[in-house]
Amino acid sequence: MAWLETLITDTPEAGFELAIKLARMGVKYTQPDAEVRDTLRKEYAASADSLTMASHVVAVHYQTVAAANNYWK
Amino acid sequence: MAWLETLITDTPEAGFELAIKLARMGVKYTQPDAEVRDTLRKEYAASADSLTMASHVVAVHYQTVAAANNYWK
Amino acid sequence: MAWLETLITDTPEAGFELAIKLARMGVKYTQPDAEVRDTLRKEYAASADSLTMASHVVAVHYQTVAAANNYWK
Amino acid sequence: MAWLETLITDTPEAGFELAIKLARMGVKYTQPDAEVRDTLRKEYAASADSLTMASHVVAVHYQTVAAANNYWK
Amino acid sequence: MAWLETLITDTPEAGFELAIKLARMGVKYTQPDAEVRDTLRKEYAASADSLTMASHVVAVHYQTVAAANNYWK
Amino acid sequence: MAWLETLITDTPEAGFELAIKLARMGVKYTQPDAEVRDTLRKEYAASADSLTMASHVVAVHYQTVAAANNYWK
Repeated sequence: MAWLETLITDTPEAGFELAIKLARMGVKYTQPDAEVRDTLRKEYAASADSLTMASHVVAVHYQTVAAANNYWK
Repeated sequence: MAWLETLITDTPEAGFELAIKLARMGVKYTQPDAEVRDTLRKEYAASADSLTMASHVVAVHYQTVAAANNYWK
Repeated sequence: MAWLETLITDTPEAGFELAIKLARMGVKYTQPDAEVRDTLRKEYAASADSLTMASHVVAVHYQTVAAANNYWK
Repeated sequence: MAWLETLITDTPEAGFELAIKLARMGVKYTQPDAEVRDTLRKEYAASADSLTMASHVVAVHYQTVAAANNYWK
Repeated sequence: MAWLETLITDTPEAGFELAIKLARMGVKYTQPDAEVRDTLRKEYAASADSLTMASHVVAVHYQTVAAANNYWK
Repeated sequence: MAWLETLITDTPEAGFELAIKLARMGVKYTQPDAEVRDTLRKEYAASADSLTMASHVVAVHYQTVAAANNYWK
């Protein structure tokens, strides 16, 4: 089943959530084991720098999604 | 309640504050627990590199918001 | 044999997989030894920050692939 | 008082200095306490990597400011 | 002798190799001593994060080269 | 005396050298003390990751300079 059909979203907020999904899929493709990913969650969810790094990946994907949607103008 | 209706802002300064909000929402989506985020604030707010990393995420989002607003020209 | 003929893909999902490939090729060109890369996999596949860093490289390449495909519009 | 009225500057050099200001404002919004920021200055101003990280944030903002000014062409 | 005459390449793959060269030249300009660079190769070629960081620089340059070549369309 | 009059350069190579200069100026504005910067040079010039980080900043500035010069086409 395709997990990514389009970059087009109805709203900027839905676009942000797509960017979150893209960032997480980048991790999932690299570490397919869900159990390992869950274990690691404790690691990054309690580290300020890890959370900033995650937010940074979302920001890069949000640039892509926002441009794809012509900034929902 | 939608937290992000539009990327359009009246001024470059309002756009910068939207970029700050987007950077923080990227953390919030990853770590929804406000208490944990507050605890972590002590960690990053007293580290030069952590603050630079946070400023970097704001810079990426500001690129997106500025382009969305055609640089407020 | 050429490993990269085009940046054009049929779908956003295929584009994401191309971005993954580009990120990995960036590592392969820098460390051609497959054995070393496999050994290192244990290192990054069990570190939250390493996985986020890998996802970040995918995000940058996805920007390029998405723009190349005019966001599959 | 508004600290950011426009992204338009007369020269590439003035644009670079605006990028520096934007990078610093990203820190200031995150850590409003000037005393803390001054204390941290000793930390990053004597670390090669910290200075490179700071220069990186300036580079991202400079992309934005340069595009806003159509590269002062 | 000029090392960089043009950003235009015949293929996406040749463009990727140019991006690799640009990333390496960024290191070479900063550390001109080939012996030091060779010594350091042992350091980064055996570190997952170092290899990811190197791949990240290639990704940024590939954005530039791909845009220069209008994505080889 | 102005240190940055224009982003326009005759060649891609001259553009790369301007990107190097911009990356270094980002450090210089943050740490104006030349003696400190020279001392720090020993630190980053002997670290693979520090050199990669420096090359990354050059890559971001090179994107800006290349776009300013319409990729010297």
